[in-house]
Amino acid sequence: LTDFGDGSVYVGAMKGVIAAICPTANVIDITHGVEPQCVEEAAFLLASAYRFFPPATTFACVVDPGVGSAREIALVEAAGRRFLAPDNGLLGGVLARETPTLARHVRERRFFLPEVSSTFHGRDIFAPVAARLAAGEIAPEAVGPAVDPARLVRIAPARPERSEAESKGAIGRVVHVDRFGNLVTDVAPPAAGAAPRAVEVGGRRIERFARTYAEAPAGEPFTYIGSFGTVEVALPSRSAAQALGVGRGAPVRVQFEEAKTE
Amino acid sequence: LTDFGDGSVYVGAMKGVIAAICPTANVIDITHGVEPQCVEEAAFLLASAYRFFPPATTFACVVDPGVGSAREIALVEAAGRRFLAPDNGLLGGVLARETPTLARHVRERRFFLPEVSSTFHGRDIFAPVAARLAAGEIAPEAVGPAVDPARLVRIAPARPERSEAESKGAIGRVVHVDRFGNLVTDVAPPAAGAAPRAVEVGGRRIERFARTYAEAPAGEPFTYIGSFGTVEVALPSRSAAQALGVGRGAPVRVQFEEAKTE
Amino acid sequence: LTDFGDGSVYVGAMKGVIAAICPTANVIDITHGVEPQCVEEAAFLLASAYRFFPPATTFACVVDPGVGSAREIALVEAAGRRFLAPDNGLLGGVLARETPTLARHVRERRFFLPEVSSTFHGRDIFAPVAARLAAGEIAPEAVGPAVDPARLVRIAPARPERSEAESKGAIGRVVHVDRFGNLVTDVAPPAAGAAPRAVEVGGRRIERFARTYAEAPAGEPFTYIGSFGTVEVALPSRSAAQALGVGRGAPVRVQFEEAKTE
Repeated sequence: LTDFGDGSVYVGAMKGVIAAICPTANVIDITHGVEPQCVEEAAFLLASAYRFFPPATTFACVVDPGVGSAREIALVEAAGRRFLAPDNGLLGGVLARETPTLARHVRERRFFLPEVSSTFHGRDIFAPVAARLAAGEIAPEAVGPAVDPARLVRIAPARPERSEAESKGAIGRVVHVDRFGNLVTDVAPPAAGAAPRAVEVGGRRIERFARTYAEAPAGEPFTYIGSFGTVEVALPSRSAAQALGVGRGAPVRVQFEEAKTE
Repeated sequence: LTDFGDGSVYVGAMKGVIAAICPTANVIDITHGVEPQCVEEAAFLLASAYRFFPPATTFACVVDPGVGSAREIALVEAAGRRFLAPDNGLLGGVLARETPTLARHVRERRFFLPEVSSTFHGRDIFAPVAARLAAGEIAPEAVGPAVDPARLVRIAPARPERSEAESKGAIGRVVHVDRFGNLVTDVAPPAAGAAPRAVEVGGRRIERFARTYAEAPAGEPFTYIGSFGTVEVALPSRSAAQALGVGRGAPVRVQFEEAKTE
Repeated sequence: LTDFGDGSVYVGAMKGVIAAICPTANVIDITHGVEPQCVEEAAFLLASAYRFFPPATTFACVVDPGVGSAREIALVEAAGRRFLAPDNGLLGGVLARETPTLARHVRERRFFLPEVSSTFHGRDIFAPVAARLAAGEIAPEAVGPAVDPARLVRIAPARPERSEAESKGAIGRVVHVDRFGNLVTDVAPPAAGAAPRAVEVGGRRIERFARTYAEAPAGEPFTYIGSFGTVEVALPSRSAAQALGVGRGAPVRVQFEEAKTE
């Protein structure tokens, strides 16, 4: 998971390094299309995807505006998987859901490439360390000193703030826009089965709810609980992002119905 | 093969699910750049590509405007390979070329992920079923009831219609535009070796034929038989799509020379 | 490494052919985003990436404006790796760094697909030959006649020309623009540790040097030695390409400081 761009030669170089150290690694691209330097989007996508990957997966995540600076690199074990990322909040979404069983700062230079550039730690640090972990060549404890998980950097919570007055309302943001122009928010329903009654985004109030794209009437924006488990807004056969003039980062306000049992 | 967009996190999640069920699967992206919801383009690309893949390949194809609705999912065996796709015409190109040896509707929920979302069956149904088939964990007969192959949905034929009056002419469409801006049509020559004499597209009549890009004169659009076996239109070192103002879906009329023996 | 576009169905077809011949091949995309037909960019990226790949890697490189013409295809062994590419200069960057231990022209049709199209040798020649080499099915000597490495096509040197008058200056070009809009040039420092004193590009003279993105002041273009080992120009959190109106191919002039020991 990086912001290098899909098909970037930087991703190719990382995979070359991994293949040289751990030839049997099954390397899967989560996405490299994270908006450049957008740690928040990366944190959301990682938190949405990790549980679909096999136990013992090593995740190498590089959205790293501070590359080459004094920022630390974190290795975290949680949910039976390993997460390697700059200690800049990228693991915040995972840490909000899981209790880590290990947290280390990655400092042992002997596990890096012999020459470490100041601008491309993905190739020179993340790839070789991830490959050595995946190969079982090194134990997680070997990468560097233990760190109190509570001290790992977290970003401003990707969780809705709830006011007293409207216990069924939530404030959040558009954290991802997919290829179809669907607006993915970070607002999860307060209870399973609770449908959004109204979503306010981009100056529009959307009250139409649908369960699937197919059952939504043409030309009308509608809301639904998306495959990440959060509220989304879409337009049948069109880009909601374009039609509503809304992009990543836009504020969103959601009111929920009472929870229903399915 | 999907329309999720190249590098989409949706593709990453599908691969995570596959890796968890069948770790030894060799997963290959045909393309995820199909125009959103364009079943016709997906059907053409799949039909153009499948024969280059190994026998026993399982193809998981998701261009699925009806996701979550009552549409069925089809599993078809043909040409020694397995094809899993919404029963919406996506397999039409394959079915026009091959006689199926098995056709089933996929309904056995125990082979899906435990929780099935209403908007992302790629991750929750297609990926786990494809992985179980590839792993040999389940037999194709187990996925659901047999269906008469003649009842599988086919889309409007991607074949040229021929009028009596011009037996060497054909009407078709631009079904794909590649990265170079080459216009790929669905019009195949009536006989091997038959070269197009003239192609009408976007209000232009193109009579120049070339065998390769290199032998075409600069600045002139030309026609050739492309690597998919159908008529294409290109411009040397430029995008024909841009220069001619033509995109996917544009109607095309082709007249052929008499077949020649090479 | 191709210019087919990331996620292109052409890349998918090549991988299908490889999987059919050598199922255990670990196929890695370096990039398919080379500017269409830009042999120079491909040569630079290949030369920047190959040493990060395992020994015995077979590189299949297809940027091939002359496909189907009389141009030759070259197989070169160098640095313990194998390189397969049109003999059009694409291997020029590798050949400038390494002494080949084998050079052949690829002519043995029995190693190609049975039908060879005139426009897609990636699928019909490069993929099957690379797969047979990787599988150990054929020896490199079998692909065709030996060729004097000195006679392989080289492109205009991607090396800076140095004038007598300014021994620490160099003239070069922007050879790649990455997703962040960073301008990657082909100008390497005359000695390790030598920092650029000034870079002239797009009518601007940039004197600010930084070691990392993080230490550069916001809003100011700066220069640095990039991860490919050459001079780059960037803008913190923005696209230098966009802000300076500079793209691939733009001329660049660099003056260096005296070399320093770190």
